[in-house]
Amino acid sequence: MREKLTIIKVGGKIVEEEATLRQLLDDFVGVEGHKVLVHGGGRSATKIATLLGIESKMVNGRRITDEETLKVVTMVYGGLVNKNIVAGLQARGVNALGLTGADMNVIRSVKRPIKDVDYGFVGDVEKVDASLLSDLIHKGVVPVMAPLTHDGQGNMLNTNADTIAGETAKSLSTLFDVTLVYCFEKKGVLRDENDDDSVIPQITRGEFEQYVADGVIQGGMIPKLENSFEAINAGVSEVIITLASAISENGGTRIKK
Amino acid sequence: MREKLTIIKVGGKIVEEEATLRQLLDDFVGVEGHKVLVHGGGRSATKIATLLGIESKMVNGRRITDEETLKVVTMVYGGLVNKNIVAGLQARGVNALGLTGADMNVIRSVKRPIKDVDYGFVGDVEKVDASLLSDLIHKGVVPVMAPLTHDGQGNMLNTNADTIAGETAKSLSTLFDVTLVYCFEKKGVLRDENDDDSVIPQITRGEFEQYVADGVIQGGMIPKLENSFEAINAGVSEVIITLASAISENGGTRIKK
Repeated sequence: MREKLTIIKVGGKIVEEEATLRQLLDDFVGVEGHKVLVHGGGRSATKIATLLGIESKMVNGRRITDEETLKVVTMVYGGLVNKNIVAGLQARGVNALGLTGADMNVIRSVKRPIKDVDYGFVGDVEKVDASLLSDLIHKGVVPVMAPLTHDGQGNMLNTNADTIAGETAKSLSTLFDVTLVYCFEKKGVLRDENDDDSVIPQITRGEFEQYVADGVIQGGMIPKLENSFEAINAGVSEVIITLASAISENGGTRIKK
Repeated sequence: MREKLTIIKVGGKIVEEEATLRQLLDDFVGVEGHKVLVHGGGRSATKIATLLGIESKMVNGRRITDEETLKVVTMVYGGLVNKNIVAGLQARGVNALGLTGADMNVIRSVKRPIKDVDYGFVGDVEKVDASLLSDLIHKGVVPVMAPLTHDGQGNMLNTNADTIAGETAKSLSTLFDVTLVYCFEKKGVLRDENDDDSVIPQITRGEFEQYVADGVIQGGMIPKLENSFEAINAGVSEVIITLASAISENGGTRIKK
């Protein structure tokens, strides 16, 4: 039987402020069994870039990553944010290991081809190599993954944290019984966007399509759920969309096959 | 029989410039057997700190590390410099893993007590835990260590790269036949500081004391050699002081028991 593994993705907002980070780390300690934390860090990157006189350009919510911006995100995601989390988890008795996709060649990407937009040094994930990662997890190590990968040719690549979490979950699902948790600023997928308590507790593919047809689920939640079903179809046992403060609880929206 | 392991420490100057870094990585690939790279990054830290409006204060060649400076060195050493090296090694087929002392709790330090000088968030190494590290090395992973440790209470600590290399070498010498290489801006320890070719090929403790008494070895080279003998006494097989460009060759000064 495959052992349970929980992969939790949290956005930058939560890990970049001292109080919310402290709460997250306390909650993360409470998550039982093997686990992986995937984090963002966009606000800090924008802040440091501004201080360094580098303009942050976003297109469709994605950062245009020129050479100077790549240095900033490598510093901020791989250094500042990642090591702050790692040190915080070590202080809580969690044997964290900070990783980018370049480390142990865990995630290799390809630089996004230029179509309408040149995103610069942004990576589309090509391959996750989970063999050494799973050995470490079995030994009690808790990987903390920054939203960075590499191209195998010496370049780091800025990579979406949701994608890192999803692709890592898919790859590890061959070895573990994986639950993927996307932390979100709402309690879950809402039936009524104006009512924070109208969480839909569980969604199957058929129900999802009906919700979309009825206009209940719309906007940015649609690709998030599409990604979730893709993960489920690739072997991930369950995807949960919930509040960061509820990762060790039983709430949120569960996406099932 | 213990397998051979080479730990190479290179200063910031070499890893911070594209051309010298490329050369170093090419040379590092040529080092046979298990290996570890320990790097500095002080020049980049000073540069980024200046751009961020943070003054770099040095006392006895050591950086005074206040809270803001700690963020800079965490970003620069753990992110920018470390991941640039890791990606460069991966491109050369070396399965590098970037680490700070916080990662897998490899090196725990204690914040340096305030005596004459308050160095701030600077760590004095307390304990190296090489068990997971040695497992990974046996599996072909090449650790790339940034000059950062942690205090086990959630704080990263700025830590001298020579010390990281020396302490890691001592710890791994219980499991491997360790050669520790300190890269230096000269070809080795010189008999005549004005003659770059006057390298002393080998120094024993007795010879070292005689050289110091005769005034041949002086200044900053004395603590460097004291540290080398300490490593030798703690089980490291050999310490070599040489040029970075000569790490895969047979030159430099060899320090033996």
